[in-house]
Amino acid sequence: MAGNSIGHLFRITSFGESHGKLIGVVIDGCPAGIDIDMKYIQYEVNRRRPGQSNITTPRDEKDIVENISGVFEGKSTGMPLAFVIKNEDTRSEDYSNIANILRPSHADYTYYEKYGIHDYRGGGRSSARETATRVIAGAVAKLFLNKLNISINAYVSAVGNIKISKNVYDLDLSKTEDNIIRCPDNKTALKMIKFIEEIKAEGDSIGGIVSCIIKGMPIGLGEPVFDKLQADLGKAILSINAVKGFEYGSGFEGTKMKGSEHNDIFYKKNNKIQTKTNNAGGILGGISSGNDIYFNVAFKPVATIMKKQESLDKDGNNITLMPKGRHDPCVLPRAVPIVEAMAAITIADHILLSNSYKQ
Amino acid sequence: MAGNSIGHLFRITSFGESHGKLIGVVIDGCPAGIDIDMKYIQYEVNRRRPGQSNITTPRDEKDIVENISGVFEGKSTGMPLAFVIKNEDTRSEDYSNIANILRPSHADYTYYEKYGIHDYRGGGRSSARETATRVIAGAVAKLFLNKLNISINAYVSAVGNIKISKNVYDLDLSKTEDNIIRCPDNKTALKMIKFIEEIKAEGDSIGGIVSCIIKGMPIGLGEPVFDKLQADLGKAILSINAVKGFEYGSGFEGTKMKGSEHNDIFYKKNNKIQTKTNNAGGILGGISSGNDIYFNVAFKPVATIMKKQESLDKDGNNITLMPKGRHDPCVLPRAVPIVEAMAAITIADHILLSNSYKQ
Amino acid sequence: MAGNSIGHLFRITSFGESHGKLIGVVIDGCPAGIDIDMKYIQYEVNRRRPGQSNITTPRDEKDIVENISGVFEGKSTGMPLAFVIKNEDTRSEDYSNIANILRPSHADYTYYEKYGIHDYRGGGRSSARETATRVIAGAVAKLFLNKLNISINAYVSAVGNIKISKNVYDLDLSKTEDNIIRCPDNKTALKMIKFIEEIKAEGDSIGGIVSCIIKGMPIGLGEPVFDKLQADLGKAILSINAVKGFEYGSGFEGTKMKGSEHNDIFYKKNNKIQTKTNNAGGILGGISSGNDIYFNVAFKPVATIMKKQESLDKDGNNITLMPKGRHDPCVLPRAVPIVEAMAAITIADHILLSNSYKQ
Amino acid sequence: MAGNSIGHLFRITSFGESHGKLIGVVIDGCPAGIDIDMKYIQYEVNRRRPGQSNITTPRDEKDIVENISGVFEGKSTGMPLAFVIKNEDTRSEDYSNIANILRPSHADYTYYEKYGIHDYRGGGRSSARETATRVIAGAVAKLFLNKLNISINAYVSAVGNIKISKNVYDLDLSKTEDNIIRCPDNKTALKMIKFIEEIKAEGDSIGGIVSCIIKGMPIGLGEPVFDKLQADLGKAILSINAVKGFEYGSGFEGTKMKGSEHNDIFYKKNNKIQTKTNNAGGILGGISSGNDIYFNVAFKPVATIMKKQESLDKDGNNITLMPKGRHDPCVLPRAVPIVEAMAAITIADHILLSNSYKQ
Repeated sequence: MAGNSIGHLFRITSFGESHGKLIGVVIDGCPAGIDIDMKYIQYEVNRRRPGQSNITTPRDEKDIVENISGVFEGKSTGMPLAFVIKNEDTRSEDYSNIANILRPSHADYTYYEKYGIHDYRGGGRSSARETATRVIAGAVAKLFLNKLNISINAYVSAVGNIKISKNVYDLDLSKTEDNIIRCPDNKTALKMIKFIEEIKAEGDSIGGIVSCIIKGMPIGLGEPVFDKLQADLGKAILSINAVKGFEYGSGFEGTKMKGSEHNDIFYKKNNKIQTKTNNAGGILGGISSGNDIYFNVAFKPVATIMKKQESLDKDGNNITLMPKGRHDPCVLPRAVPIVEAMAAITIADHILLSNSYKQ
Repeated sequence: MAGNSIGHLFRITSFGESHGKLIGVVIDGCPAGIDIDMKYIQYEVNRRRPGQSNITTPRDEKDIVENISGVFEGKSTGMPLAFVIKNEDTRSEDYSNIANILRPSHADYTYYEKYGIHDYRGGGRSSARETATRVIAGAVAKLFLNKLNISINAYVSAVGNIKISKNVYDLDLSKTEDNIIRCPDNKTALKMIKFIEEIKAEGDSIGGIVSCIIKGMPIGLGEPVFDKLQADLGKAILSINAVKGFEYGSGFEGTKMKGSEHNDIFYKKNNKIQTKTNNAGGILGGISSGNDIYFNVAFKPVATIMKKQESLDKDGNNITLMPKGRHDPCVLPRAVPIVEAMAAITIADHILLSNSYKQ
Repeated sequence: MAGNSIGHLFRITSFGESHGKLIGVVIDGCPAGIDIDMKYIQYEVNRRRPGQSNITTPRDEKDIVENISGVFEGKSTGMPLAFVIKNEDTRSEDYSNIANILRPSHADYTYYEKYGIHDYRGGGRSSARETATRVIAGAVAKLFLNKLNISINAYVSAVGNIKISKNVYDLDLSKTEDNIIRCPDNKTALKMIKFIEEIKAEGDSIGGIVSCIIKGMPIGLGEPVFDKLQADLGKAILSINAVKGFEYGSGFEGTKMKGSEHNDIFYKKNNKIQTKTNNAGGILGGISSGNDIYFNVAFKPVATIMKKQESLDKDGNNITLMPKGRHDPCVLPRAVPIVEAMAAITIADHILLSNSYKQ
Repeated sequence: MAGNSIGHLFRITSFGESHGKLIGVVIDGCPAGIDIDMKYIQYEVNRRRPGQSNITTPRDEKDIVENISGVFEGKSTGMPLAFVIKNEDTRSEDYSNIANILRPSHADYTYYEKYGIHDYRGGGRSSARETATRVIAGAVAKLFLNKLNISINAYVSAVGNIKISKNVYDLDLSKTEDNIIRCPDNKTALKMIKFIEEIKAEGDSIGGIVSCIIKGMPIGLGEPVFDKLQADLGKAILSINAVKGFEYGSGFEGTKMKGSEHNDIFYKKNNKIQTKTNNAGGILGGISSGNDIYFNVAFKPVATIMKKQESLDKDGNNITLMPKGRHDPCVLPRAVPIVEAMAAITIADHILLSNSYKQ
């Protein structure tokens, strides 16, 4: 209840801090008999890990995933799946310079005020390091969804003002992993990378947008009224560090449309009920329609920058933060697997919910 | 769990359909001793009710709120508060023409597929009528928040392409109720109303944006990681019918900013820790900072239009939907109290969560 | 969260007080397509209603159940089922004599201390009247279970020191409703009734035991570790007013047995895996084994008695409670349908949980 | 939701199997600023550990507790507390003889049927080893409760037919740890130990009763209706392996009493409202009254015995289980800290719930 778990039935609980011995995640509710492919899980975690390219933080952590429980002879047993990642030696780092400091747009201030105590080393629990455990859980969710032929693909669609101009259906999503920014449109990708390199050189950071599409959706996921599929999906996404907005289907642009333009007209094709358009984004009345779900996620620029900044310590004394250490000039490429993970966890959860009242 | 409840501790459960005897809501967790001001609750519900102006549906329902339980001598007792609204006589309406019809961009299709049965009369449970019970619960939450000097004000900031150009701090929000579109900028309001009248004359509908600001926030609401304040707020808002997007603080625009521009610099003013800007939107690391929370909500155009539309019935036969009945050309003015209600419920809930571990 | 809901997926929320307009219950998660047989529901509620015989309170209330939502053409729609019972005119009763009184072994004291306010009329929310809504929800759960050939039968097995000496399998449970005490062994029933009449003549009350058996159990209900089937069943039963104990299978007697006596030996019969005994009470490792589940429930004597009692008011002043009004000398016969209801709700809930991860 | 978590706000999630690398527990909701005394936690875990005396299993495991997260400079930070115990080398054990075997009165059968897969090594997740993590969480809860002067003491009150004849108030509970059976009445303890030694010599096992008393209770813990304090306490206790019954206050004996005998009469002593008796067991209407809470817990005899038993394998073939390995002839002395732990977790949880609506 205190915020470290998400999901109704496919429910994950994460623990650990960037500076402790390890971080980990417990996954409850995963059906028995799923192949828990450790190579795939490690692959997903590698997509998020620091030090993967010159536009991410140079902090080099291996992030080796270990399974602790819930697997027997390679398959899930229905028992809680637990996984951990050992934190590599962090003792050598010196955090005394940030003790009591309120870093601008970080969680230090609110943690001190809420708890009266804050493990400031590496940002403690508020560190984005926590998202590595989400990626593990998301990989397990994907292994479950793969069996049902549901695929989830995210990609970077904007960095600052540089946007993909193509529609998702005009993109070849198999190319997302071909470049370090994870933008499937190579021309745009090159522009984005160049821009981030400039930003990095300035010691600054930049925001952007991750887009995501879910294909192979079954009809009927989502609960009416409060646990609508978009509501649970939105919550999962908005719980990711640095996310400032979520829109699905026609989104904010759809507010400018007339009903006669926006309505998705039903018709029959191949003897199946289809719609001519998909402004709904695959969800009608909170319930999946079988159409693809697509959504956009706004990420603010990373708060840690390599520029001098004025600030306060927790007692209100003026201090100056000097550029130091390592940072991500743009969190977007590493955010892609996290967005996929949170989407996968939400869809897996709603499959279980939907199963529950089937007779 | 099946979607009709929301909130961790301040938890509401809604029930009823547009065509049954009544709709209602149970509110669990409301502290004892709150003045349950029925006039205020009715006032809030009136802001949402149909038939309130010529740019809303002409369906005239009184929506009289009755308290059922949880109040003794005018005050909440800590027991579940229950309220109902009797549906006025609906038997005379003839729904035989819509039986089995899949209305475009409505929930009929997904309800039939998910449940195999659908009370199509008036849209059944998927009807926006359900939101009246949210407004009741939101009014109770506001009565609780008022005691803590927390205020929540929403308003219409865009209808189609017509937008307020002013910042929320340049607006006089006390004027929101002065016009039928609930836009505090009177000039823009007049344009919006004129535009909606044109849309209505066409038999069409139009979307728009509701903006909201929460003032007087205590520091420390929100839980780290998954139950971040913005995540729970986003879920609550995204659970409202017709919502397609949610952004808070700098939102989607913030993705274009550099970290050095976006970071909110701490400084001291009146001996209190403040920030020079509020791009964070009042939330740092998922926890309220005491700054104002502000957010935008995208509403799609209403799916019911007074134009001929092609569609299918649930067996896949072609049908033509003829314009008939009454509709809202623009849901925005009636959405304002619903957005406030969902925000109030979320903040009340997080106050209780935050109280729980105070020693 | 504040205690007025129970169940993970088949989840009920009750509301209302004995002195308000009505009491009611919302049932979430009931699968669509169940015949909601209102006659059956009313029959079950009648088994609990006051005034049904000369050994229950003479308070005569009709307790007519009305459906509010979730039913279309006689079947559940998957939407929240809501039911209410209107309280008959209670205004004529005069409660001024009990205002501020701490009735011995009632909830007045703890309600005043916890909430600072208490709707003392008729006991408010702490009144056993609330259990009528449990019986409604239990009846719905039974309609669902009946389709799966699961039956739940409770009966009075002890009143004070008068006990049924027969094993449950030597009893004809179809005879439970043949007498007013709901004991299927007629000889014992007559003794119990005579004893209660004596207790009633004294103005006193007496406790007893309700036993219950669940037949037709599917294998596999219950979750390991914390949500073991017996744990959820025990919680549901212990939440009933006046319950002081719960034991299942061999129960407290089983503590005196050796492992070699207590172990239920597996063997094969009719080509099915069976056990020679059922000391386990149908649950192994928290999960149903397919064997019958049986359990006993201890009910204390009703606190309201027709005898003079010394007590205090909430300010600590001495007062004397004089015999007045009407009471149940023994709550047992009316408790039978409540025990069945809570068992049915728990089993229905675990069927949904169990369905959720079936592939 | 799948059963590996318990608690509303003070919520624990356990993971791990007896045969994996480690077992662990995540504790959410623990207030910040509690001294996390690792020596005390280890002391509590030692009370449960195997090999502690000649009447427990000779399996010798050190069960060293390690903290993973949630502690900074010795105090809880409000972040999820995680602890693990590494399993000592278990690879050398040979489990091939029990693969596919249905051990009588164990969970093998139901696990195979429910999940289609079962990590049978050491009983997997159904092993009582899981309870070590409960003791860790219970120790943390006790550290929190100690600050509020709430104490929880359990002890063995019966082994088979050998019972303590004294009332809890006539016992010196400081002597519970003075003997290996954890019975504070030394004479009875000696009889119990002798009896267990005989049972052990036979290769058999025996059940018994653990009693528990909670002192220093605040008034007002517990929620009306479904989350009554006794209901949540009962669930927590009934979730312990081998528990067959729970009774509190007057319990099953109370069913034989008349209301005039059972009612606890209020009176004033030392200017405080008190009751002359405490048949209620410290809970009125589901809410703690400030009186001591006391309850009894029935434990069945351990299913693993050192005697030849007939059984089946999972395919239904007859097999004979030969005596082999090590077992607890009586689980009672090791159950004492587990009962205390589950009680502590429940009380801590209800303190948080109760705090939540305080203004």
